[in-house]
Amino acid sequence: MTMSRRELIKGIGASAALTLTGAPALAQQPGRAKVIDIHGHYTTVPQAVRQFREQQLAAVRNGSQTTTLERVTLRFSDDQIRESVQEQLKFQRERGTDVTLFSPTAGAMGHHLGNEATSIVWSRICNDMIHRVCTLYPNNFIGVGQLPQSPGVSPRNCVGELERIVKELGFVGVNINPDPSGAHWRDPPITDRFWYPLYEKIVELDVPAMLHVSASSNPNFQGTGGHYIAGDTTVFMQLLMSDLFKDFPTLRFIIPHGGGAVPFHWGRYRGLAQDMKRPPLTELLKNVYFDTCVYHRPGIELMLKTIPIDNILFASEIVGAVRGVDPESGHYYDDTKRHIDAMTFLSDADRQKIFADNARRVYKLKV
Amino acid sequence: MTMSRRELIKGIGASAALTLTGAPALAQQPGRAKVIDIHGHYTTVPQAVRQFREQQLAAVRNGSQTTTLERVTLRFSDDQIRESVQEQLKFQRERGTDVTLFSPTAGAMGHHLGNEATSIVWSRICNDMIHRVCTLYPNNFIGVGQLPQSPGVSPRNCVGELERIVKELGFVGVNINPDPSGAHWRDPPITDRFWYPLYEKIVELDVPAMLHVSASSNPNFQGTGGHYIAGDTTVFMQLLMSDLFKDFPTLRFIIPHGGGAVPFHWGRYRGLAQDMKRPPLTELLKNVYFDTCVYHRPGIELMLKTIPIDNILFASEIVGAVRGVDPESGHYYDDTKRHIDAMTFLSDADRQKIFADNARRVYKLKV
Repeated sequence: MTMSRRELIKGIGASAALTLTGAPALAQQPGRAKVIDIHGHYTTVPQAVRQFREQQLAAVRNGSQTTTLERVTLRFSDDQIRESVQEQLKFQRERGTDVTLFSPTAGAMGHHLGNEATSIVWSRICNDMIHRVCTLYPNNFIGVGQLPQSPGVSPRNCVGELERIVKELGFVGVNINPDPSGAHWRDPPITDRFWYPLYEKIVELDVPAMLHVSASSNPNFQGTGGHYIAGDTTVFMQLLMSDLFKDFPTLRFIIPHGGGAVPFHWGRYRGLAQDMKRPPLTELLKNVYFDTCVYHRPGIELMLKTIPIDNILFASEIVGAVRGVDPESGHYYDDTKRHIDAMTFLSDADRQKIFADNARRVYKLKV
Repeated sequence: MTMSRRELIKGIGASAALTLTGAPALAQQPGRAKVIDIHGHYTTVPQAVRQFREQQLAAVRNGSQTTTLERVTLRFSDDQIRESVQEQLKFQRERGTDVTLFSPTAGAMGHHLGNEATSIVWSRICNDMIHRVCTLYPNNFIGVGQLPQSPGVSPRNCVGELERIVKELGFVGVNINPDPSGAHWRDPPITDRFWYPLYEKIVELDVPAMLHVSASSNPNFQGTGGHYIAGDTTVFMQLLMSDLFKDFPTLRFIIPHGGGAVPFHWGRYRGLAQDMKRPPLTELLKNVYFDTCVYHRPGIELMLKTIPIDNILFASEIVGAVRGVDPESGHYYDDTKRHIDAMTFLSDADRQKIFADNARRVYKLKV
């Protein structure tokens, strides 16, 4: 089950004469990035990646030998990789984002599909694809990885891939799926000791984790509007009831999609913490952060007025869950930056924190 | 399995000399109620009710004969009932609520516990208790019922109890648990034809239904802050993807707790509907309503500025999920009325809709 990156991507031709446009935003702005989007997914991978995944899962269903890393012969040219991220780069340019923390498609992690061996191969492929993008566009993308989780399997088994993506690929964070069962929620809560071996490694490597579910295999939960938001909400409640951060004081979690329902129901969570004789939520906010993937102005406004500015990290989840243009505004739903720009009650220092400084602190970024 | 109400409550002594205070709010204000709270639960039932439930479930666990209605001999005096709702009445007086749509404790419905026979007995007891409260305090409480749902059992089997509570007990609405499995979400989505026999009766009786989950038996989902809010959110997404209301144009659903995450993520849901080529959300709002159980001012404000006023029904969920006093404001978290009172952008007509007229329309109230 070992394979060098060279083997994995064999057959890739160099393409020096490339004319596809990168977006040297950082080059144009010497110094550090001004706007860091911490939540972008590589949803536009070359078609061959999807085909491989289909074949891999079909092989499991048919009881064939699980695909091993040794047998993977995905071939892409650098041009194909470049081509595949042009939409991301276009959005960066148009919206004024300097750099995106870029991770594999959350919905495609599919930890509930196949088995642990399948997940190991699939995670390596997805993480290596992210690494190639980051290598081709070092100014535009910084890597965040997925883990080879599998329902009922100890997260301890993800430690190897975590170490690889941080130490070998230079990734700055990782996405943890709090429900590897795919919206059946069959594994223990993220505050259970079941997860501790993974947290030990995360703390040792000093990278934050986004708690991001993957696709749903439960017809009750549509993915991007059901399972995602429900998942964000319920993991916050798990954390509220737990002493996890006493055991891991430096562990840092980001809850995506604006924290699910949490900012909207901040009073409920404050009150529940109080009724349960738990510490005030401000304690939790020493370790828990929210991104700004909320796709309308009143939602962003509520968030910025409710959650401390130090706990809010700019993100737009491109190219992601919602792809359309709002006919009422003429803007993309997921163009969250323009809402933050428009908030007159924010100081320049606040905006600097949301757009960059908080991300630098939480992800220990050098940009 | 038949039993008259007289038998069920046998042994109750009349208590004409009662000194406990009712709250004749309507008598003090001739004419129609000004403030209708559509979401109150009878969480303060006499202790004997809880004891019965424990014994009933213990009997199922021990494999004893399931308790049948014939064997139920719960005895309460009217005084005990009166005593048990004094906290509700106090909150009504203090906050200026005229009348509460009053239903059995949602968390205690516990459809995942026991079996169908258990649920039938338990639902009848809970609904009859509500009826007694409403009979004793006709100006303060109007009945809303629970159903004898059970995981994997057709909702068709709830039709009899639904008919009884509406036709015999005069209830104006019903709570449907969209997840009778107790946070395992094993039954079909609420838009599935599985549920249609129940909807047919609901439409025939012309009562609305609140989609309200019960307790969680899944350690991933705490109840009032996890499962409730996640459930509210996911049922909205189920409705968004469905043509249910084409089949039942007069069916009316209330999503409690401010609609879970929905108003906060209104842009996401608008965008998802658009991406999925579904009708705009305004179509859905012909049949879907939200209550105001959101426990902080920015949340209430976002809701009132995002959701059309005609779709918002005043509620506070007393005595309910959050019971404490916010030390920052000195007010109860669940005192939602004061936030609505404070919204200067609302017209008097808007407030009249939220506090009363919308409830009258949706629940066909005479008050």
